[in-house]
Parts: sequence; structure tokens; C-alpha cells
Amino acid sequence: MTTNAPSAPSWGPPYLLYLGDAHDDLAIKTARGLAVWRPQWCLGQFRGPACKSSLDLPDLSFAAAREAGANTMVVGIANAGGVMAPQTVRDVVAAIEAGLNIASGLHQRLDAHPAIAEAAARTGRVLFDARRFPHDIPVGKGLRRSGRRLLTVGTDCSVGKMYTTLALEHELRKRGISADFRATGQTGILIAGSGVPIDALIADFISGGAEWVSPARHDGGWDLIEGQGSLFHPSYAGVSLGLLHGSQPDALVLCHEPQRPHMRGLPHYAVPDLKTCLETNLQSARLTQPDVIPVGIALNTSKLTVKAAADACKAAEDALGLPCQDPVTMGVGRIVDKLFSCFAS
Amino acid sequence: MTTNAPSAPSWGPPYLLYLGDAHDDLAIKTARGLAVWRPQWCLGQFRGPACKSSLDLPDLSFAAAREAGANTMVVGIANAGGVMAPQTVRDVVAAIEAGLNIASGLHQRLDAHPAIAEAAARTGRVLFDARRFPHDIPVGKGLRRSGRRLLTVGTDCSVGKMYTTLALEHELRKRGISADFRATGQTGILIAGSGVPIDALIADFISGGAEWVSPARHDGGWDLIEGQGSLFHPSYAGVSLGLLHGSQPDALVLCHEPQRPHMRGLPHYAVPDLKTCLETNLQSARLTQPDVIPVGIALNTSKLTVKAAADACKAAEDALGLPCQDPVTMGVGRIVDKLFSCFAS
Repeated sequence: MTTNAPSAPSWGPPYLLYLGDAHDDLAIKTARGLAVWRPQWCLGQFRGPACKSSLDLPDLSFAAAREAGANTMVVGIANAGGVMAPQTVRDVVAAIEAGLNIASGLHQRLDAHPAIAEAAARTGRVLFDARRFPHDIPVGKGLRRSGRRLLTVGTDCSVGKMYTTLALEHELRKRGISADFRATGQTGILIAGSGVPIDALIADFISGGAEWVSPARHDGGWDLIEGQGSLFHPSYAGVSLGLLHGSQPDALVLCHEPQRPHMRGLPHYAVPDLKTCLETNLQSARLTQPDVIPVGIALNTSKLTVKAAADACKAAEDALGLPCQDPVTMGVGRIVDKLFSCFAS
Repeated sequence: MTTNAPSAPSWGPPYLLYLGDAHDDLAIKTARGLAVWRPQWCLGQFRGPACKSSLDLPDLSFAAAREAGANTMVVGIANAGGVMAPQTVRDVVAAIEAGLNIASGLHQRLDAHPAIAEAAARTGRVLFDARRFPHDIPVGKGLRRSGRRLLTVGTDCSVGKMYTTLALEHELRKRGISADFRATGQTGILIAGSGVPIDALIADFISGGAEWVSPARHDGGWDLIEGQGSLFHPSYAGVSLGLLHGSQPDALVLCHEPQRPHMRGLPHYAVPDLKTCLETNLQSARLTQPDVIPVGIALNTSKLTVKAAADACKAAEDALGLPCQDPVTMGVGRIVDKLFSCFAS
């Protein structure tokens, strides 16, 4: 045995972020998440000739990125329908041939493209699909486990649960507290470098997936678990409930976007009010964690004026008696203050 | 085009029920369900030399069954772990060679056994796995659809939801009402001849699966949807919630086994009381069907004396103000009376 033996190739940072010919900033959401939350992992970006977005990272060719030390290219953009554009397939093959592993957050598996599968097999590079799940996840047991857990829950899908959870991790670490973001969606998994795509599991294993992604911890720190969906979303509430049960959260943070006209994708369903949503989450959470408490509200006020955002936070604070902040513009300091005051020992 | 053209081979009745070398009656649960609820489809049984069970059907060899008109052999028994015994594999191959299609309710796919896959391919026989799900199920939409629906819900897993649902179908049909059992588990799917294995779906599609299995109906009849799990089971509640939302039930029947010491498989979780369980189901169901009402309670009193069973039903009736019966020993006539009184028009 020699310590110089090369380890098996594996996806992971440092990253080249692939922006391709993204038409707008929404298309590069996954890459932006990495650039914002893991800047130390992001060496550069690759932009196609028609790209309309940028992350203000160095523009690097595949070869230059490899030379600079990049290990993996992250592909997060998709055409409508989650299908990879033909040019993206060609770029991925070229990146593989330049020596990069590939990580993807797309619905379609990388190896569903024969050219990509062939290039990876030929060069020994690794293809990682964040939506593919580990097959050894057991059914949830509901057994209490060591460690403290916070879960973000929401009135709806896409209200800022991932961002809030990462902001909480950042704030806790800043204060010297051991804390780990536990990813449950594809973008979060690429940011965390691990996790479970909870909505891609077989239905019987949802709570088991939450238990798996947040195992017992003994260092006095916190697991900060990325929430998914909403108990009030008729399409996905089963995922949210299983995640809530499996997480056994000590603390909840409720995420919400004010003035959303209806539940995402469902014009015939109203967004629940904050109080009803929080009470329902607490009631459901008590099945596996009777002592669960709420510690704050995170509002996504990106569509509001500064004054309207402040008013919305004040109204939520008054209604629920909890600190309320927009993590993007206000941070999460007061929510963490509340968390610490509730879990002092 | 000729009307004599043979149709594509397909699984379906008439059935030969394979009991193999079943050690006890629990092992033949699936076959028994078929014999009880679809006796007109069951031509005979096949028993191995060590078989300790019987369904009081004619014992038929594979060739004799084929000659008597059997189309499909149903395999419902499994060793511990859901694995098919080597002798069962040999028997299945022999049945295929005798001209029978094969339907299975086991976890392991039939074509995971090379000998079975080879025999089916060689003879053109069909292999049907009730746990394999259709891949074209869409995400749940939550849109209201025509027709009336009843869903059985439970305090726990395995408390009699399938039996109760089938008993309701039998009673409604007896009274001349159009009614269809909608199967959501593997045994139910074999009994119904169709359905969706709801707990084997990808998590994002649970409510969509319930919408798919119970589409709009316009004949004034009822869909009677087989419930799964329990909102109070920490392992599977996500499945139960998605099924509840997707079913959009007009009516619920609550199923329960008195004196169960704890939730199935989880000694650290108590069974919820009937009132709490019913209220939680109603509250959750109202998201997609605000007018949902309960119409009865079905108790599994198989472990009680006649006197204790009557007392348990009386106590449940008094507590919830709903008719309560054991479908096995008392039928479901009073529950159906209540259903009709609530949905008279």
C-alpha cells in the first residue's frame, strides 16, 4: 500500500460553472447558488456565444479550467422541459475530453446522452446526477436521534427555503457554532456536495430519506435541513410531510413570499395564511418531535419596495410573535438570536 | 382486418392461484383476497408438496389449468425478504411453458429471474408485476373532477382498509349502485385487474397517482379508493397524505384495529385515538375537497370475542357519532345506509 496511490476519480470542487447560452438569470439559478454560497469552490464560468448572463467569475475554456485546477464542471441550465440542448451535449463532451468530471442538476440523466456516456466511459471521468438517489436508503424508523435540527417549511414551493437554510448555516458558522446545511433538492445537493433528492425518492422512503440525510450528531451543533414544497400544495404535500416527520425538527423557520397570487402552478389554490400554515406544520411535526418550536419567519420580499418589505415583516412579527426577516436583504441574525435564546444550553 | 385476429396476449383472469409451499395462511394473503373477492375469476389453485394452506379451490396442474381456460397464474407468496424461492422460480417457468401468463404481487420483479424472463420471451407469455407503476402518471393538479369518491383511511397500516373498500363495493353493487374499487396496493391491483401501487411511485407523483387511478366519472356512481398507511405512521404518512389529497374524497371511512399495542413495526409509537385520527384526516382532506365528510368506522375485531367486538363498535359509535361495523363479521350495510343518507341526490 502506498499513500501516493491515486484515489478514485470523483465529482466535487473545485468547479467550473457552465452557463452555456443562458437567456436570463433564472436559467443559471443553480450556478448562481454555487457562486453565492460556495465561492471558494468556483474557479470560473464557461459562457457560450449567445449567453446573456454572467456570474462575474473568470471566463475559462475547459482546458484552462482544468489547468487552473477545476475538477468538475457543473451543468445547471436546461431548455424548457428539462432537456439538454444539443450544443450543451457537445460542450459537456468537450469538457470531459479536457479532463473534467461532470455534475448535473437536470431531470434528464447525463448518461441518457450516448455521446456523454461514451466520452465518460472512454476517459474514466465521473458523471454525477444530483437527482439520482442512493438506493440504500431505508424506510423511516421515527426513532429519536442525537443532535439538534432545524427545518425550513413554506407556505408554497419556491419561496426561499434553500436560501434561508444556507443563510442560517452561514450565520451560525459566523458565530462559531458547528452547523451543516442538509440538502434535499438538486441545487442544494450541488452546493452541499451531498444530500438526498427527496422528491425523487420512492414514496415509501420519504421520511427515511430525511433520516438518512440528517443522521445523529454529537458535537452540539445544528443540522439545518432544506425544506421542500408545502403541506398546503396539493401536488407535493406528501413530500413535505414525510420530510417533516423524518427531520424530527427541534425548530422550524417558516418561509413565505408575500403577495403571491396563488399556489405555484395552481391558480385555483390560494396561499395559506402564515398562522394556519405554521400551526399545521407544528401539529404534524409533533408526531415525531413533540417539543418542536418555531423560531422565525423568512420573507422573500424581492418584489416589494423597501418600505413595503419592512411593513410585511412587521405584520408577520405581530401576527406570529416571531422575528421576521428577508434573508437576502436583512440577513437572519434576529432569527438566530431567537434560536439561541430558545436552545441556550 | 378480421375479427378473428388474436388479440395481444395480456395478463388477466381467469386465474390459477399459486400457493406453492406456503407455510401458513398469512403467506397466501394475496391469493385469498382474489378467491374471496373475485371467486368468478379463480378456476383453481396450485399447491406444492409441502403446502400447509388451501383455498378450497380445485387443485390443478399448470396444464390442467390451461385446459380449463386459465389465462394467468397469480403468484402472491414470498419468502422472508420478498425473495422468490428457487422452487417457485421453477414452477413459474413450468407454468409459462404450459401457456400461462404470470402476475405477481412480490417486491422482486418477475424478470429479475433470468429463467423466468427467458421462458416468457421464448413463449410470448406476459409477465405482470403489480408493484411496477405506469410511467405516464402526471403530477397532481388538484383540479376538481366529476363523480363521487370514498376513501378508506386508517389509524395504522394493515387495519383492514382494502377489505373494507372491497366490502363497500360489494354492498353498493348489491344495492344496484354503480361502484368501482380503485386499487392502490399490489394485492388490490391483482383483485381489481388494474390500479396504481401508490407507495412505489416517485414521491412527487403520489397525489397524481391518486388522481390517475380515480379519474372523472359521469354515471352517478362511486369510486371506492383503497387507502394506504396512516397520517400517524412516521414511516409512511407522506404516502397517506398524497393519496388523501389526490383522491379528493367526498366521504371517508375510518379503519381501525382495537387493542393494537403500537403502530405497526414501531413499538415507540402509540396508535392515535379515533377522534384525533379522523379530525386530522378531515382537516387534511379539506385542502382539495372542502366538503368531505365521514360516513363510518370499520373495525377489525378479529382478535376480540363477539361480545368485546360489539362493545368496541358501540364505544366507537358513541365517541364519533358514526355507524361502526366489522366488515368481516357484520358487513358494511349501516355504513352504506349512512353514505346514502348523506348523498341522497
